[in-house]
Amino acid sequence: MSGIDAKSLIAELSARARAAATRLAGMDSAAKAQALRAAAKAIRADSDALVAANGEDMAAGEANGLSGALLDRLMLDSGRVEAMAAGVEAVAGLADPVGQVIDRTERPNGLVLTRVRVPIGVIGIIYESRPNVTADAAALAFMSGNAAILRGGSEAIRSNRAIHAALARGLGDLADAVQLVQITHRAAVGAMLQAEGAIDLVVPRGGKSLVARVQAEARVPVLAHLDGINHTYIDGAADPVMACEIALNAKMRRTGVCGATETLLVDRAFADPAPVLAALADAGCALRGDAEMQAIEPRVAAASGEDWDTEYLEAILSVKLVDGVDAAVAHIAAHGSHHTDAIVTEDAAVAECFLNQVDSAIVMWNASTQFADGGEFGLGAEIGIATGRLHARGPVALEGLTTYKWVVRGTGQVRA
Amino acid sequence: MSGIDAKSLIAELSARARAAATRLAGMDSAAKAQALRAAAKAIRADSDALVAANGEDMAAGEANGLSGALLDRLMLDSGRVEAMAAGVEAVAGLADPVGQVIDRTERPNGLVLTRVRVPIGVIGIIYESRPNVTADAAALAFMSGNAAILRGGSEAIRSNRAIHAALARGLGDLADAVQLVQITHRAAVGAMLQAEGAIDLVVPRGGKSLVARVQAEARVPVLAHLDGINHTYIDGAADPVMACEIALNAKMRRTGVCGATETLLVDRAFADPAPVLAALADAGCALRGDAEMQAIEPRVAAASGEDWDTEYLEAILSVKLVDGVDAAVAHIAAHGSHHTDAIVTEDAAVAECFLNQVDSAIVMWNASTQFADGGEFGLGAEIGIATGRLHARGPVALEGLTTYKWVVRGTGQVRA
Repeated sequence: MSGIDAKSLIAELSARARAAATRLAGMDSAAKAQALRAAAKAIRADSDALVAANGEDMAAGEANGLSGALLDRLMLDSGRVEAMAAGVEAVAGLADPVGQVIDRTERPNGLVLTRVRVPIGVIGIIYESRPNVTADAAALAFMSGNAAILRGGSEAIRSNRAIHAALARGLGDLADAVQLVQITHRAAVGAMLQAEGAIDLVVPRGGKSLVARVQAEARVPVLAHLDGINHTYIDGAADPVMACEIALNAKMRRTGVCGATETLLVDRAFADPAPVLAALADAGCALRGDAEMQAIEPRVAAASGEDWDTEYLEAILSVKLVDGVDAAVAHIAAHGSHHTDAIVTEDAAVAECFLNQVDSAIVMWNASTQFADGGEFGLGAEIGIATGRLHARGPVALEGLTTYKWVVRGTGQVRA
Repeated sequence: MSGIDAKSLIAELSARARAAATRLAGMDSAAKAQALRAAAKAIRADSDALVAANGEDMAAGEANGLSGALLDRLMLDSGRVEAMAAGVEAVAGLADPVGQVIDRTERPNGLVLTRVRVPIGVIGIIYESRPNVTADAAALAFMSGNAAILRGGSEAIRSNRAIHAALARGLGDLADAVQLVQITHRAAVGAMLQAEGAIDLVVPRGGKSLVARVQAEARVPVLAHLDGINHTYIDGAADPVMACEIALNAKMRRTGVCGATETLLVDRAFADPAPVLAALADAGCALRGDAEMQAIEPRVAAASGEDWDTEYLEAILSVKLVDGVDAAVAHIAAHGSHHTDAIVTEDAAVAECFLNQVDSAIVMWNASTQFADGGEFGLGAEIGIATGRLHARGPVALEGLTTYKWVVRGTGQVRA
């Protein structure tokens, strides 16, 4: 497969996707939900075939020496297929943002202006070898009125083809709204990233190297987050018990998620940091800090300069004493990644100062950064979390997959 | 000036702009408005100096053979300086979107989530030799809490330096929020377009070649429109008098604006197209159409295939008969530029079909496309009109220069 072949393949898929997107944009919520429920049903009906196709991917993956973690993410069994079908049904039950009127103005000349939510159009989704994303991303795009071009990791190609076939059968004459890139050559990714005008938005779902490549190469807009270098700041006025519980949860509940705290900042005025550090160390968290922190808790290792800019995604936490909320805000401005940052304090004025000044997609007061998640935010699902500054920030679900248009209704007005 | 020098200049300007943007993000509306009013006052006080500096630009422009149209856009006199100051004051009087709560959710676990409007950050504005844009764009960015990096056309550099000096004096210790690229080398534009992370958004204001260059080279997000290939569709159920008035106004009120209609589509079922075509021709509009249209109005010249894809920005109109609203929608999908398209009809169902199906930033019913303008939309001003699909579409004013963040308020919640 050459770059030119990949380009024409993506052009063909996106032309079919565009035609479907045009139809989908005008469909009502009930019709979209019904099509998605039929797709879920088709996934369930094909359960054995999906597990069999996945078995071939698993065998090839094992033969190619994929790690246990990657094989686990690749694996489908009947329980996972059922979860996938149920996920599609859950998306079908979400409120549809398309057609929602954002605002309405009547002008002195009688023109009535509304801003109405409309789908974005054609969305490319580039992800790793996790077959469940095929159904999940397709459903989110579809329910928000968008066509999707799916490009999953090559190790999952047989699984993805089988899932795509089930989706397409379920969607019936709307099958073109979900396009799968059937070839595994990486040139297809490059062609998607260059498809200005044909693909309106690319969403990379996966690890840092995938996202970094997409951000570096893309000519089309990208919705993504690269790093989650998240901070929890324990203020001098924090409740000590709450501070300890939040710090422990924010770091240790799951260390591999993008909402995990990676740096704990503690106000020098906070009375008792020792129990917080001890609780973390007792829970198996490796701590890295400066001499002051080492003096407080002997299990703190010496931090290097890099620690403050590192997303560990492991049971490692950098810890630092700072002089109050302003110093915490300054540290976060210098080292954060604009994802999720939290303050623990009983002082509402200090909290508001932090919430206002920290320039992140999500800022939190007296809560664990691990809540950074579309489900926890009540969005019902998420296509991802965005740390860019435009369009959508934080957890992105159906609404983030829409844009708006201005609808102007007149009675013959002409402009003077 | 080398590319490296330009890069370090832009890095320096954007670092100063970022520091100012951080301060500006936390300021209340009254303080921003007060600073802008002081800037307007400084412009007024410097009127003679501005006109004098502009006189040098004008002399150089004449010596360099600038066209009359360009010289007119470059020229400042005391009346235009006053208009510039009044424009800054008008922006100071606009409602400030920053801090506005978009929505609020309370989760079952007691977490309270709000989405709050925040400034985008640092905005680069690249424009031609129109000195008034210096004050206008700076004011819009400032009032929405953003720092601006202004790069105007080189022919206006002396005028821009003088306007910038007045703005800076008026803004006092917030002067860093408005940075002017003081050098005229084009490498500075390239450096701005590549300044990912340092400049959050670039807004090109100017003609097609400027916008095309910016869109082609930019690594930072761009808010712009390239073409306004706008359509007015006269449906079979249109009121003939209204149809004639709207068609005439949509094309001929001002032919050089981006909201001007460039193609008139007429339903074959519309009873009497002849008076519409005659009125346009009588008003001095050159008409281009197919044999059918030529048969209706002898002053219609033969259209070439290119006419349907051309933004004339002159008193030229392509005219075409189509079979009803579906054919009109299909023509617009094939040839439009997603800017502004209008239908004239008395049939509400046909109108809604058009408004739903036409995929443009602005869709209109029974109104002239020339209303496509931030002022006419009640926004008070506009930084430009966007035809991209993400973030902001149509006229963009203060709200379009903001984004949002999620603010989560808890009482010690940790995630299970």
